[in-house]
Amino acid sequence: MELKPTKPLSGFIELSPVAQRFVDECAARMLGILRVAGFSNLDLPAIERAEVLTDKDNWDEIETQMFLFQKGDTKMGLRYDGTVGLSRYVAGHLNDLTFPFRASQFSKRYRGERAQRGRYREFYQMDMDIMGINTLSTNYDAEIISVIQRTLNSVSEFIGDNYVRIGSRPFWDALFDYLGLNADQKKNVFILIDKRDKMGDADFAEGLSDVLKNEKLENEIKSVFVTGYKNFVNKSDNLDAAITELNDFMKVLQDFGVKNAEIDLSITRGLAYYTGLVFEFKLSSFPELGTAAGGGRYANLSEKFSKTKIIGVGAAIGFSRIFVSLVESGKIDLEKFDASIVAAVLPMGNSAVPFAMNVVNALRDKNIATTVYLDADKKFKNQIEYADKIKTKYSLIIGEDEVSSQQIMVKNMATGDQEKMSLADTIKLLKTV
Amino acid sequence: MELKPTKPLSGFIELSPVAQRFVDECAARMLGILRVAGFSNLDLPAIERAEVLTDKDNWDEIETQMFLFQKGDTKMGLRYDGTVGLSRYVAGHLNDLTFPFRASQFSKRYRGERAQRGRYREFYQMDMDIMGINTLSTNYDAEIISVIQRTLNSVSEFIGDNYVRIGSRPFWDALFDYLGLNADQKKNVFILIDKRDKMGDADFAEGLSDVLKNEKLENEIKSVFVTGYKNFVNKSDNLDAAITELNDFMKVLQDFGVKNAEIDLSITRGLAYYTGLVFEFKLSSFPELGTAAGGGRYANLSEKFSKTKIIGVGAAIGFSRIFVSLVESGKIDLEKFDASIVAAVLPMGNSAVPFAMNVVNALRDKNIATTVYLDADKKFKNQIEYADKIKTKYSLIIGEDEVSSQQIMVKNMATGDQEKMSLADTIKLLKTV
Repeated sequence: MELKPTKPLSGFIELSPVAQRFVDECAARMLGILRVAGFSNLDLPAIERAEVLTDKDNWDEIETQMFLFQKGDTKMGLRYDGTVGLSRYVAGHLNDLTFPFRASQFSKRYRGERAQRGRYREFYQMDMDIMGINTLSTNYDAEIISVIQRTLNSVSEFIGDNYVRIGSRPFWDALFDYLGLNADQKKNVFILIDKRDKMGDADFAEGLSDVLKNEKLENEIKSVFVTGYKNFVNKSDNLDAAITELNDFMKVLQDFGVKNAEIDLSITRGLAYYTGLVFEFKLSSFPELGTAAGGGRYANLSEKFSKTKIIGVGAAIGFSRIFVSLVESGKIDLEKFDASIVAAVLPMGNSAVPFAMNVVNALRDKNIATTVYLDADKKFKNQIEYADKIKTKYSLIIGEDEVSSQQIMVKNMATGDQEKMSLADTIKLLKTV
Repeated sequence: MELKPTKPLSGFIELSPVAQRFVDECAARMLGILRVAGFSNLDLPAIERAEVLTDKDNWDEIETQMFLFQKGDTKMGLRYDGTVGLSRYVAGHLNDLTFPFRASQFSKRYRGERAQRGRYREFYQMDMDIMGINTLSTNYDAEIISVIQRTLNSVSEFIGDNYVRIGSRPFWDALFDYLGLNADQKKNVFILIDKRDKMGDADFAEGLSDVLKNEKLENEIKSVFVTGYKNFVNKSDNLDAAITELNDFMKVLQDFGVKNAEIDLSITRGLAYYTGLVFEFKLSSFPELGTAAGGGRYANLSEKFSKTKIIGVGAAIGFSRIFVSLVESGKIDLEKFDASIVAAVLPMGNSAVPFAMNVVNALRDKNIATTVYLDADKKFKNQIEYADKIKTKYSLIIGEDEVSSQQIMVKNMATGDQEKMSLADTIKLLKTV
């Protein structure tokens, strides 16, 4: 019989136990921050109706982006982000939820595209959103940024410092109006701005020239990437409003204790959803990771699901992008996650198992991470080798003598020292680890 | 524009924030038990190659059971259990893992079948497995049962007591041999035994009669469900071996401190995988939930992936079946999960926001669950209504006076009492909640 493949599908991740412990620890810390900040954790379905996932009905095209399937008459697929499900959920529970409603999500998302190097087809994102009905102060945008920074800071021992850059969609809208662009030009220039980072300056300039065919206009737009909004103060009411909003917002960020925040109008966060301020976090020590977290404001989050106007500000942390990447590229020292076991109980022979299990239960009751070697007829050599390999801090050796004296031979695996002691004393010792 | 549906697909669950808090709390406690018992948490891909998921190649048939899709030439689908991925993973990492290897998984699984009442198409299971190469003492079977009971006990305030019933696949094999059944009869009788619970006694008797056409044999088999193995002591070596194994095992379970364990030979755990002892947990207070957890031993876990013989003993807790069912049927008092916020900070006007945010940050730094109402221009009435609705324990009201005195008006929402105090005193008070 031919053996089946043991590798996961390309673009799908599976970690070693020690790497998984690191990733789980980071998730737990960050989710703790969200809980303390009053976010309600939601765990929404991974599968949504196709019509919820997309407005397109060109099955062949969307199939290149998503995992889709049909059951009976119903077309459905795996979610690609957290926002689409959230906007459906909130619209369906307007009367049960209290607004402003803070929601967090930590879940797997899926992209059906062909796997490329460094692109995951299954990945975790951690979302946080604050939603209000009809009104929502930009103070909440600042809170979201503050909370993201707190989550990233909670794991700074691994990922170092972070900084955040703030952009404004209204600024660009106002600028395009001020420059007199037509609808087509607005759309195409915005696409260029959004892709500018990947294109490089020369291609960007060429693209602008293709769309605008007007050197003066092109230069005005290019100036934003050099001097920011400086050239556009006192040019139009809308420009001034957008600039004032940005500057006021930077002050609020300071009040919230946000560090390393700057205006960067090149931040636009793509074409969908966002209608107000937008932002991106990066990691100072890992520029190669690109955007660690990003988000912004949407004027009407659930417009496809409800006539009620739900304003949202939200962000997603690229959890797999950060932590799985770092661990897979060997940039995290996993040593401190290597040794997760405090005690390995080693019974020498089956007659030692009953007392060994008493010891195991007593330690586990005290929340001391304990494992036990239960092929009790195996030699001491095999058992201590196991204890060594799993990097337990102590081995608790239980042979005939120990059973009859109800004492435990406690061996410190780092020093090699060993001492016989009572269960009570063993617990006392291991509690200090 | 027609609005899109806000309900999830049938068979998919989404919970209210309070119900989700309850479910998350139960998961956290149970996963904590597994961690302390030295299980390595794994988070394997939800999507596997179709050939990993099934040996069948009748696409139409397996499509009625699974969510399947094709990308390029590769057929793949969503996992329906935790064992299939684990057996692949372990076979692929024989040299990186230390055996016996303890693995836990807590993840969503998927069934593609038509949604029926009470059947989820997306559901959580919590798996634990212990795997050894070539040998694995049945002491580990007892440890798995002990650990399951510990996880269930960790949430007993919600689900009450549990009991476990132990069956034996070798007993039935030995009995069928002793009774002289042919291969076809063995297979068909075993299918009947496995379905007996759902069929009822009359249909079971009729089924047996159809297969065996021998009243004496039928009665011998039926006797097992009345008097257990009693009639089959000293009948054959294999029967005696199976009976001895069971009785020895019950003693080991006692040594492990397992409570409410009994032999029940009607427990068989279906046709796949299992080759040794099998077991099922039920909840005394919620018989309608059926099996809360179940598992057993497989002689060759990864035989489809590796020539190395990996013996496993494993079990899955029907996490959604237990917790989502109980919460959806209103059998859990969610009141204690209702009030997750300790402090709601209410700034009266935008000029109070900077001090309010200082307070919020200081409380969050101290791990005090804190939310803040940031539409600061809204009236006191709106803000206190919000605080009331989210059931915060304290409201911290910050107006002009408070800003200038850097004091906080702390209102106990249960008693209505309020008192002005410093930030330090506020923290001291809230830390006691």
